Amino acid sequence: MKIKIAIAGYGNLGKGVECAVNDNPDTELFGVFTRRNPDDIKTLTGAKTFKIDEIQNYKDEIDVVILCGGSATDLPVQTPELAKYFNVVDSFDTHAKIPQHFDNVDKSAKEANKIAMISVGWDPGMFSLNRLYAKALLPNGEDYTFWGKGVSQGHSDAVRRIDGVLDARQYTVPIDAALEAVRSGKNPELSTREKHKRVCYVVAEDGADKDRIENEIKTMPNYFADYDTTVNFITAEEMERDHSGLPHGGFVIRSGNTGIDKSKKHIIEYSLKLDSNPEFTASVLVAFARAAYKMNKEGLKGCKTVFDVPPAYLLPISAEEIRKEIL
Amino acid sequence: MKIKIAIAGYGNLGKGVECAVNDNPDTELFGVFTRRNPDDIKTLTGAKTFKIDEIQNYKDEIDVVILCGGSATDLPVQTPELAKYFNVVDSFDTHAKIPQHFDNVDKSAKEANKIAMISVGWDPGMFSLNRLYAKALLPNGEDYTFWGKGVSQGHSDAVRRIDGVLDARQYTVPIDAALEAVRSGKNPELSTREKHKRVCYVVAEDGADKDRIENEIKTMPNYFADYDTTVNFITAEEMERDHSGLPHGGFVIRSGNTGIDKSKKHIIEYSLKLDSNPEFTASVLVAFARAAYKMNKEGLKGCKTVFDVPPAYLLPISAEEIRKEIL
Repeated sequence: MKIKIAIAGYGNLGKGVECAVNDNPDTELFGVFTRRNPDDIKTLTGAKTFKIDEIQNYKDEIDVVILCGGSATDLPVQTPELAKYFNVVDSFDTHAKIPQHFDNVDKSAKEANKIAMISVGWDPGMFSLNRLYAKALLPNGEDYTFWGKGVSQGHSDAVRRIDGVLDARQYTVPIDAALEAVRSGKNPELSTREKHKRVCYVVAEDGADKDRIENEIKTMPNYFADYDTTVNFITAEEMERDHSGLPHGGFVIRSGNTGIDKSKKHIIEYSLKLDSNPEFTASVLVAFARAAYKMNKEGLKGCKTVFDVPPAYLLPISAEEIRKEIL
Repeated sequence: MKIKIAIAGYGNLGKGVECAVNDNPDTELFGVFTRRNPDDIKTLTGAKTFKIDEIQNYKDEIDVVILCGGSATDLPVQTPELAKYFNVVDSFDTHAKIPQHFDNVDKSAKEANKIAMISVGWDPGMFSLNRLYAKALLPNGEDYTFWGKGVSQGHSDAVRRIDGVLDARQYTVPIDAALEAVRSGKNPELSTREKHKRVCYVVAEDGADKDRIENEIKTMPNYFADYDTTVNFITAEEMERDHSGLPHGGFVIRSGNTGIDKSKKHIIEYSLKLDSNPEFTASVLVAFARAAYKMNKEGLKGCKTVFDVPPAYLLPISAEEIRKEIL
């Protein structure tokens, strides 16, 4: 009996989940639920499509719903609502609002005897786990998170809103010198500007004032003003050819000291280099959907995060096999 | 109320645990238990010393015993024995015998309603966890573990047993070209010789035949014959000055593909660079001792590995704080 997974929301992330469900031996796709007209959607693998409003009708046929909407407006409403009927997993990533989201979701899930796993992905998600493990192992230390090289959708959108800009892509790039200083164990204090730089590729309207666009980008508060930013004007063809992917990744590094005189230095580093941010996030979601299903089968309920999941629940093989093959 | 930890066995690992217990805000050392005469041992922090045979007398005063003996003869006997009275944590690292050790320990711990956490450290331990997470996230992929640069005690001992050798230190060194091939996502097939090389530093007896010693090292089956090995003869002073530490570390890398046509490549890399292998292993043991204590408080019992521990149990702060600060 495979774990039956439903997808709620069919953008890049939903498509990634569709592929990831296919790639795992113990999961199968029940279908895709959407706000759009289901008949208008052609899925990658031929999965069935349904109206999101009718998802409750399939309450007994779905083991886990993976929510693939956005953190700004979709998930704060959808996750607590769907947790009333299903085990759910989401990738809620608005850090400041996680405690509130947790409480809302926890209430629904507990009442329904379901597991609702929130903020699953790579950051929050795998990076959070690595921050936790590293902090537990090296209590005397400092940790550092670097993002990139990768496309930031939020920053790309901010550039696109500038007058005269037809299209834009923004890469967040960690600065090598900062990474090396951290890896050396020096525990440096690093300013925002010292950790990351920003590189923009912009397609401008014919006749647009490129100097003005460049200046508006570089001085944009919050998004760019605190960083060294490079702006490259390119053609629509170059954009399509060279910047159509959504790569991302980054580094979590902790350096700390042990010993009676604290003289021994240790560096723990975790890094991701991802060709596709949504496809990798989707793969994380599916692994934790498996865990949510197993934990619920054992009688657990309520809101959970990656911190609450015994790692063995993430694999489709038995505890004995895991110990034998992986320990 | 701090978690009261006892140390069984006072070598390098036991000393590391003593320091790590000191470095954590919620743990305190009950004392050190030893097979030697307790009065002969001067601990690093002034911790009390006791005869190991008398440990049962302190059954109600100790929350967790961390076993710091060796995997060959100590732990197979000590862990199942002490699990009859205490929550215990060990670093059993004989991979092939883990299933047997698990079963023995599980029986004792279940009967006593205790938690016994085995094979805790960095490999087995943190490297195992990273192999598990990476495999769960990228089911279509390959993983690779590299060790070093670091001192292998077993290989150093093997060289010391050669006639004419006074002292020896063996470093296991991962080969850069292999690491780079793996990081490129090529999923290369690598022979033993292609992954690691071995570098030995040897202090020979006056007048010993160095050519013979070098040849005996390089042709030693299992230990060296399958590797490219370099042998350097040095003085006792140089050994003391340059090779008295026990550094180690390594890399766990998984590369895998996702997407409808498997065209997207992802690389997950975890690495450790450790000034002191025993002190870092000790830090891992103490973090998992905290988890063992908490899990037992919640009524859990039996043998556990790092795969069974919800990560949140590893930190001395509440689940709310962990979500707020680390997620």
